[in-house]
Amino acid sequence: MTQQINPVTDFVSAEVYAQVQQFYAHQMGLLDDREPERWADTFTEDAVFQEASKMEPLHGRAAIRASARGSVDRLVANGVRMRHWLGMIQVHPQADGSLRTRCYALAMRTPQGGDLQVFVSVVCKDHLVPVDGGWLVRDRDLVHDGAGNPTRSAQA
Amino acid sequence: MTQQINPVTDFVSAEVYAQVQQFYAHQMGLLDDREPERWADTFTEDAVFQEASKMEPLHGRAAIRASARGSVDRLVANGVRMRHWLGMIQVHPQADGSLRTRCYALAMRTPQGGDLQVFVSVVCKDHLVPVDGGWLVRDRDLVHDGAGNPTRSAQA
Amino acid sequence: MTQQINPVTDFVSAEVYAQVQQFYAHQMGLLDDREPERWADTFTEDAVFQEASKMEPLHGRAAIRASARGSVDRLVANGVRMRHWLGMIQVHPQADGSLRTRCYALAMRTPQGGDLQVFVSVVCKDHLVPVDGGWLVRDRDLVHDGAGNPTRSAQA
Repeated sequence: MTQQINPVTDFVSAEVYAQVQQFYAHQMGLLDDREPERWADTFTEDAVFQEASKMEPLHGRAAIRASARGSVDRLVANGVRMRHWLGMIQVHPQADGSLRTRCYALAMRTPQGGDLQVFVSVVCKDHLVPVDGGWLVRDRDLVHDGAGNPTRSAQA
Repeated sequence: MTQQINPVTDFVSAEVYAQVQQFYAHQMGLLDDREPERWADTFTEDAVFQEASKMEPLHGRAAIRASARGSVDRLVANGVRMRHWLGMIQVHPQADGSLRTRCYALAMRTPQGGDLQVFVSVVCKDHLVPVDGGWLVRDRDLVHDGAGNPTRSAQA
Repeated sequence: MTQQINPVTDFVSAEVYAQVQQFYAHQMGLLDDREPERWADTFTEDAVFQEASKMEPLHGRAAIRASARGSVDRLVANGVRMRHWLGMIQVHPQADGSLRTRCYALAMRTPQGGDLQVFVSVVCKDHLVPVDGGWLVRDRDLVHDGAGNPTRSAQA
C-alpha cells in the first residue's frame, strides 16, 4: 500500500469493518482451538504466508495447513494453550473489491498449570479477497517487533 | 453451540456487532470502576455465572452482585486496579433473538505504585438476551487458559 | 461526563462506532510508525494533551508534535519499537455533534532483538470533534493505572 491514508477521514463502512473483525475472531479462534485444517480453509488455494523472522514463506493452502498442523501438534504435546489477539485493525479497500488490512497481533501462551506469557507483538498485513459473500486471505505478511532487519519498515 | 460456523461468511450485522462491543466495554468498565452493583445489573435476575477454576457457580443476580462486591472490596483494600479486556468477539445469533457470544478476555492488575501484570487469559462464553432495546447476560461461562482439566474444550 | 450511562441500552450507531475504532487504529499506528508530524495532525490546533503522571499538560498541536517528535527520536536512538493498543471503547455522543470517548490503552515495547514488555495500562478519555467528514482530538486525558493520587477516579 503506497497510497497515503488520511487517518481522520478515510473510513470503510461499518458493515465491512465488522465483517473483518468477525473474520479475524473466527479465523484465529480456529487456530487457537487446534483446528488447523479449518483454519487453513480461510486462505485461498494459492495463498502466500510470510513470517520472515520465523520461517521461509509458505506457498499454497496445503503448505499452510501442514505448517499449522505441525504447530498445533507441538502445542498439544507440550500442553500449551496459545491465544492470538488481533486488534487496531485498518482496512484499505482496493479498486478490485479486495481489501488490504493491517492490524496488530499479540501472541500469548499458557502452559497447563502455568502462567500466561504474552510473548510477541506482530504487525499483520493481509490481502483479503471476496469469496462467496465472505473473505479469504490471499497474502499474509507477519513482521515480529524486535526481529530481523531493524531498517525494515512495519508500515502499511 | 454445536452448529458449525463458516468463519468466512457467517457474519452478524454491523449494528449487532457494534452493540455487543459497546455492551462489553460498558459492562467491564463498571466492574473495573468498582461499581459492582451497576455491574450486576447487566445480568438477568436468574443469570448463572460460572468460572470453574475459581469458584462454584453463582446463581442469580444477587449472588453475582455479592461476589463482585467482595472482589471490589478486596481490590480497594489492597490498592490494586484491575482491568478486564475483551476482544476477538464472535457473535452467534439464536432463533429466539438471543445471542451466543464467545470472546477472549485478559485480566490485568496494577498495584498502586507498582507494575502492570497481565496475569490470565480467559475464554468467555455468554448468552445475551434482548431486554428493553439492549442486552443482558443470562449465562456466562469463563474458562481460564491453563487451568482445570486439560481435556476440557474451550471451543465455542 | 457526568451523565449516567445505561450500559445495556446506550449504544451509538455502528457507523459512528466503526469510525472511532478506525480513527484510533490509524492514529496510534502513525505514532508507532514513527510519524509524529502526521500523528500530531490528528489533533486540533488548540488541542490539550494531558498525561498527569508523566508530564505537564501540552497545549496546542505544535507542543504535541514537538513532544511526540522527541519521544520518537529517543525510541529510534534506543532501537525500541513501541505499540499502543486501544480497546474497550465507549462512545458518548454530545449535543453539539462531538464525541466523548473512553477507552483502555496498553503501551508495550520491544527492543531490537529483545523481549516484548507490556508495561502500562492507561485509561484514555478523548473529546473528538467532527472535521471535514472525520474526527480530530481536541482533548486527551491519559491516566496511568497505579500512578498518581490513588483517590483520583479513572471513571468516565
